[in-house]
Amino acid sequence: MQNRKFFLDESDIPKQWYNLAADLPTPMQPPLGPDGKPVTPEMLAPVFPMNLIEQEVSTKRWIDIPEEVLDILYRWRPSPLRRAVYLERFLKTPAKIYFKDESVSPAGSHKPNTAVPQAWYNKQFGIKRITTETGAGQWGTALSLACNLMGLECKVFMVRISFDQKPFRKMIMGVWGANCVASPSTETQAGRDILAQMPDTPGSLGIAISEAIEAAVTDKTGQTRYALGSVLNHVLLHQTIIGLEAKKQLKIAGEKLPDIVIGCAGGGSNFAGLAFPFVYDKINGAKMEIYPVEPESCPKMTKGPFVYDHGDTAGMTPLLPMHSLGHTFIPEPIHAGGLRYHGMAPLVSQAVVEGLCTPKAYGQMKCYEAAMTWAKTEGTICAPETSHAIACVIDEAVKAKDEGKEKVILFNYSGHGLMDLVGYDKYLSGQLSDYALPDSDVKKFQSSFANFPKPEVKKTGKW
Amino acid sequence: MQNRKFFLDESDIPKQWYNLAADLPTPMQPPLGPDGKPVTPEMLAPVFPMNLIEQEVSTKRWIDIPEEVLDILYRWRPSPLRRAVYLERFLKTPAKIYFKDESVSPAGSHKPNTAVPQAWYNKQFGIKRITTETGAGQWGTALSLACNLMGLECKVFMVRISFDQKPFRKMIMGVWGANCVASPSTETQAGRDILAQMPDTPGSLGIAISEAIEAAVTDKTGQTRYALGSVLNHVLLHQTIIGLEAKKQLKIAGEKLPDIVIGCAGGGSNFAGLAFPFVYDKINGAKMEIYPVEPESCPKMTKGPFVYDHGDTAGMTPLLPMHSLGHTFIPEPIHAGGLRYHGMAPLVSQAVVEGLCTPKAYGQMKCYEAAMTWAKTEGTICAPETSHAIACVIDEAVKAKDEGKEKVILFNYSGHGLMDLVGYDKYLSGQLSDYALPDSDVKKFQSSFANFPKPEVKKTGKW
Repeated sequence: MQNRKFFLDESDIPKQWYNLAADLPTPMQPPLGPDGKPVTPEMLAPVFPMNLIEQEVSTKRWIDIPEEVLDILYRWRPSPLRRAVYLERFLKTPAKIYFKDESVSPAGSHKPNTAVPQAWYNKQFGIKRITTETGAGQWGTALSLACNLMGLECKVFMVRISFDQKPFRKMIMGVWGANCVASPSTETQAGRDILAQMPDTPGSLGIAISEAIEAAVTDKTGQTRYALGSVLNHVLLHQTIIGLEAKKQLKIAGEKLPDIVIGCAGGGSNFAGLAFPFVYDKINGAKMEIYPVEPESCPKMTKGPFVYDHGDTAGMTPLLPMHSLGHTFIPEPIHAGGLRYHGMAPLVSQAVVEGLCTPKAYGQMKCYEAAMTWAKTEGTICAPETSHAIACVIDEAVKAKDEGKEKVILFNYSGHGLMDLVGYDKYLSGQLSDYALPDSDVKKFQSSFANFPKPEVKKTGKW
Repeated sequence: MQNRKFFLDESDIPKQWYNLAADLPTPMQPPLGPDGKPVTPEMLAPVFPMNLIEQEVSTKRWIDIPEEVLDILYRWRPSPLRRAVYLERFLKTPAKIYFKDESVSPAGSHKPNTAVPQAWYNKQFGIKRITTETGAGQWGTALSLACNLMGLECKVFMVRISFDQKPFRKMIMGVWGANCVASPSTETQAGRDILAQMPDTPGSLGIAISEAIEAAVTDKTGQTRYALGSVLNHVLLHQTIIGLEAKKQLKIAGEKLPDIVIGCAGGGSNFAGLAFPFVYDKINGAKMEIYPVEPESCPKMTKGPFVYDHGDTAGMTPLLPMHSLGHTFIPEPIHAGGLRYHGMAPLVSQAVVEGLCTPKAYGQMKCYEAAMTWAKTEGTICAPETSHAIACVIDEAVKAKDEGKEKVILFNYSGHGLMDLVGYDKYLSGQLSDYALPDSDVKKFQSSFANFPKPEVKKTGKW
């Protein structure tokens, strides 16, 4: 009989992360300081522990996962690879739809895959307290969990719109002992400045990042650092365990490489985590379509240029080479809070520039429709972020049917939506609508990076 | 390396349910009608479809699971057997703690194991609409899921206190297309009568059952039936897939039989589902302690007598031979809503009378303390019901440490608590307290069954 779930023994868990920076046809361009010069590791030291900064700038292809990190990840990893046979039947598609089920982590998403190593490296470096931001709440939940398991303090600045929409999120962070406040808050200068200008702002990831960095670097004990849940190289690195496991599991399922790889993309980490080990194959000649899916309301890859821009609203981070809508852009308060970010991870951005990945954008209504189809076939409630991947999966499966091709589709089920039911409720009661960022608004915030240096749009043109 | 998760291939899923009624040393005493005479299948026909009534009264040891039911269950079954090594380390116990992870179902608990076959048998019988009650919301969620997958209508009467405490529950039922109202409601005579007497009642499972049965039997189309999430023989039967899988998985883990089997017990179904396949071994000579765990606020097994009593508050059900606190008893509104039921399943009750199972009672505070220990070691948020099993597991693991014995403890992780965070929040903010039902109150509601026939307290006395 054909299994619908493919497991790995714990002993078969990947022991190393995969670093795409080693294989990108065009080397990554460095982050720049306010003076336009490349940022040195020492300049990042007030923000991150040095061991993570070393990972951030590493170009080693394989990086060992510490034993103690694996010991914690074993709580839920290896995560299952599953096949969506019920959705396949419903769509009457010849495509085979596989997904990595990252919803099985205690926090309900892929985020603990990096929260755990980040907390571990911080602890190794003697840090006692970690600050962070969270959008939908998934990352804050994950870091709370990791800090709790590691005996560290955790402070979370949660984007206000999500804080209000998802009250259970702060409760679960409370169970794991974290301190969670709505952002913008009055606890930081960045927060107070924004509140003075826009007292009713729904907040944004960019603002919350500014607050969390400020809270870390202004702590006089020197024992506080900041952790980011996406975007940075070391975060994407930690997530590659997803794709590395998926490769082994696809083999168990009797498949070679997938024809299509899909992940939703906010900052880029769940997408990269699944996709990068397959981008490696594509670089080495395999034929494959790889789709990061973003919301039409925050279309940085499909409409934003590849530029140098800040990662946060207040401009506290170095300039990163990435697709950006401008660091002052505040996305519409869609329910997929984890996709409300103005920029895209530099590694994903460069892969897009190279043509290794082809971004897609979907509207909120089509994504909820896909989520409902999923709930009524596969049975589970997906996160609003994940629904973006599912909407694209359904389109591709229908296309495979139209073409009569038995394609293998692999996507990342990045999280469950059990704490995001308010969005479903609003969708079902007709309170939601679509919003695509108009081209005129795409230009509007580009002034925020107009005076920064320009990265070279290097492209080898092979893909 | 020692795995912490033990999976079964889908092809190894049990193909038959185990019926304890075939092996109980003393045969079950029949349900009685209002006239004191045994209820005939025909009398139950307005409430349940005949194919389920046949299962209810069957004494066949093994009953085939329909292929189509298995096809639906494969979405999440076989569920993993897991080992709680992090809790073991924290407790420094030589005991090995295994648990069946029933939280992996789309509804988040063991309940879909019976919701799916019940919906299937109803559909086979030509039924279009199913009514039910729900306490914590787990059962209503499960039946909504099952009806949705099967194309049936679903109406859920949800105990008011849970309806108010757990707003996300009605949203998730809404995603699966069910209609959920707070009970007591004004939609039934039973509900209106209770509201007239006690307008501010928190409700109870007993009341909600009365309403759901009334809604089924008064439907003039004849195409509506009622489904119960626990207590009845066929419900417990369907849950035995848990224990049957666990047996196979314990073998994979290198264990023989467990020394101790533990489950929380409200109506008895998750406990029975895990325990009955092991009760079989105990009947056949194996040494084993088997503990159903109930709340001190609703101590039907530890303090209630074994009597004939109604399953619902309004007295619409036949009289069942069971441990009961009286069908008019309304338990305190503890957060473990699924354990707020006045009676215990007849099969579990008889197993207790025989001495095959030894009930335990725990207070709410100790259970939340156990849930917090679990969250901080294993990492996951358990349901408040499940915390009762965990509190007992911790006690037994500590005892094993004191005795220096490497005992094998198996328990049922019956559900996650991701939709029950309000209870955690109240616990953490000091708003919860303990409540043990005083002995004087235990007597108070016994008048409600004083005039009913008495079951014989048969006991072979071997255990």
